Amino acid sequence: MTEIAETAIVFPGTVIGEGCTILDYAVVGKQPTLSPRSTATQELLPPLELGAGTIVSTGAVVFAGTRLGERVIVGDQGCIRERVEIGDDVVIGRGSLVENDTTIGALTKIQAHAYVTAYSTLEDNVFIAPCVTTTNDNYMGRTERRREVMRGPTIRRGARTGGAAVLLPGIEIGEEAFVGAGAIVIRDVPARAVVVGSPAREIREVPDDELLENQ
Amino acid sequence: MTEIAETAIVFPGTVIGEGCTILDYAVVGKQPTLSPRSTATQELLPPLELGAGTIVSTGAVVFAGTRLGERVIVGDQGCIRERVEIGDDVVIGRGSLVENDTTIGALTKIQAHAYVTAYSTLEDNVFIAPCVTTTNDNYMGRTERRREVMRGPTIRRGARTGGAAVLLPGIEIGEEAFVGAGAIVIRDVPARAVVVGSPAREIREVPDDELLENQ
Amino acid sequence: MTEIAETAIVFPGTVIGEGCTILDYAVVGKQPTLSPRSTATQELLPPLELGAGTIVSTGAVVFAGTRLGERVIVGDQGCIRERVEIGDDVVIGRGSLVENDTTIGALTKIQAHAYVTAYSTLEDNVFIAPCVTTTNDNYMGRTERRREVMRGPTIRRGARTGGAAVLLPGIEIGEEAFVGAGAIVIRDVPARAVVVGSPAREIREVPDDELLENQ
Repeated sequence: MTEIAETAIVFPGTVIGEGCTILDYAVVGKQPTLSPRSTATQELLPPLELGAGTIVSTGAVVFAGTRLGERVIVGDQGCIRERVEIGDDVVIGRGSLVENDTTIGALTKIQAHAYVTAYSTLEDNVFIAPCVTTTNDNYMGRTERRREVMRGPTIRRGARTGGAAVLLPGIEIGEEAFVGAGAIVIRDVPARAVVVGSPAREIREVPDDELLENQ
Repeated sequence: MTEIAETAIVFPGTVIGEGCTILDYAVVGKQPTLSPRSTATQELLPPLELGAGTIVSTGAVVFAGTRLGERVIVGDQGCIRERVEIGDDVVIGRGSLVENDTTIGALTKIQAHAYVTAYSTLEDNVFIAPCVTTTNDNYMGRTERRREVMRGPTIRRGARTGGAAVLLPGIEIGEEAFVGAGAIVIRDVPARAVVVGSPAREIREVPDDELLENQ
Repeated sequence: MTEIAETAIVFPGTVIGEGCTILDYAVVGKQPTLSPRSTATQELLPPLELGAGTIVSTGAVVFAGTRLGERVIVGDQGCIRERVEIGDDVVIGRGSLVENDTTIGALTKIQAHAYVTAYSTLEDNVFIAPCVTTTNDNYMGRTERRREVMRGPTIRRGARTGGAAVLLPGIEIGEEAFVGAGAIVIRDVPARAVVVGSPAREIREVPDDELLENQ
C-alpha cells in the first residue's frame, strides 16, 4: 500500500512502485527549470521512476528523468537531480544532493550533507560519510576545453570515504579503499588503500575484517 | 500566544509550550520512518516537547522522541532527529542537522550547515561555527565491533569549534578550548587550548578576555 | 508571464518583476523572526524585490529587505537572508545560504551547499564551487571588540574558489585568483594567484586562457 502524504507533490506521469512512501512536502518528478538566459525550448525528460518500497522523506526533491531502485531511502530535505540511476537498497542521507547524470550502485550509502557532483559513478556497496564533497571541473567554469575534460569521481565497489573528505575532479577511489575523515584527495587511491591527510597519502591497507566479504 | 503557521504540520500529541512560534512548512513531531528492509514493528516514540518561547523556523523538521528547552531557535530548513535533548536558549542554525541520541546544553549555539552526529554530547555555552562536521564511526559501517565503539564527540562547556572544522570519532574538546576554522581534529583537545591545522596541533592558550567568565 | 506555484508563499508587499518563476513550497519575502530573548520591538524591513525573469526554486526561502537582480536563479532549498543585494544573472546553488548584509555582483555563480557569511562582498563574475565555507568572526562570539572587527570575505572580480575551500574571517581574494579545492585560506590571496593546501600557499599564476577576458 503506497502512502503519499496529502501535502506531497507528485508530478504527472511519475511511476511509483508498490509500497512506496512519500512524506510531507516532498516534491517528486519535477522537470528542471530552464535558465532565464537560455534560448532553448524545453525538452521534457521522461518521468521519474520509483522502485517498490522506496521512501522519499519530508521536504525532499527528486527530479524527472531519474530512476530509483527498490527500497531506496531519500532522506529528509535531500535532493536528486535529473538523469540519475540509483540501484536497490541505496540510502541518500538527509540534506544530501546527487547531481545530474550520476550512477549509484546497489546497497550504497550516502550519509547526510554529502555533495555528489554531476557525472559521478559510485559502484555497489560504497559508503559516503556525512559532508563529503566531490568535484568535477578543474577549470571552474573557464575555457571551452573544460567541457571535454569535466569528470566526476569514480568510486569503486566497497570503497569508503570519511566525513568531510574532498575529492578533486576525476579521482578514482579503488575497490575497498578507505579515505579518512577530512582528507583532501588529489590523486587516485589504489584498491584497499587507507589514505589520510591534506593532501591524502597512503598509510596502510584496509584490514581483513573490514572487507565486504567478511561482513 | 503560540503562533502556528497554517502550513506547518504538527503531529498529534506534540507538546507545545507557551508562546512558541512554528513557521511555514515546518514539520514537527514526526516519527522516524522504518527502513524498507526492516522487519521490526514500529514502536512509537513519545511525542516531541517544545519548551515555552521556542521557534521552529520555515521548512524545519523536528522528530518525535525529542525535547527542546525554552527559547530554543531551530533555524530555517534545519533538522533535529529523535531522542535529542536540547537545553534552554540554544540556537540550531539554518540547514543544520542534529542526529539522534544527542544532548545539547543550555546557551549552546550551532551555526548554519553544521552536522552533529548521533551520540554527541555538547555541554553548555558551546559554539559550533558554520559547516562543522562531526563523526562517530571509525569503521564506516563495517565489522560488528563498531557498534560497541561508535562514539560521537564530547564538547565541553564553553568550547568553540571554527568554521568547517572536522572532528574524528569520539574526540573530546576540553572546556573553553578553541578549534580553528578548517582544522582536522584527530586527537582530544585539552581545556583552553587553541588548535589549528590538518592535523590540528596546539599553538597557544585561549586569552583571558575570551573566557566565558569575562564576557 | 510570472508563474507562482499555488503552494508558494509570497509575503505581502513583495515586488515581483516580469516573467519571474516561483516554484512549489518556496517562501519569499518573509521578515526575520525576533529572537525569543530579544526585548526590541520588531522593525519591519522593506519588502523583497525580485528582478525580471528571476527564479526562486522549490522550497527556497528568501527574506524581506533583500533585492535580487534580473534573471537570478535561487536553487532548490536555498536560502537568502535579509539586507542582501544581488546583481543580474547570479546563480545561488541548491541548498546554499547567503547570510545578511552581503553584496553579490552580476554574473557571479555560487554553487550548491555553499555558505556565504554575513557582511561578505563578492564582486562580478566570481565563482564559488560547492561546499565552500566563509567566516567572519575570529572571536567566535566572545569579547565586545569582536563586533568592530567582524568581517566577511571580499572576493574580487573573476576570482574562483574551489570545492569545500575555507576562507578565514576578513580574507581578500584578489581579482582572477584561483583557490584550489579543499584549501584553507588564512591570508589574503594576490590577484591571479593560484593557491592550494592547508594552509593555502601560492603555487603559480592563473594561465592566460582561463582569464575572464579570454572566454
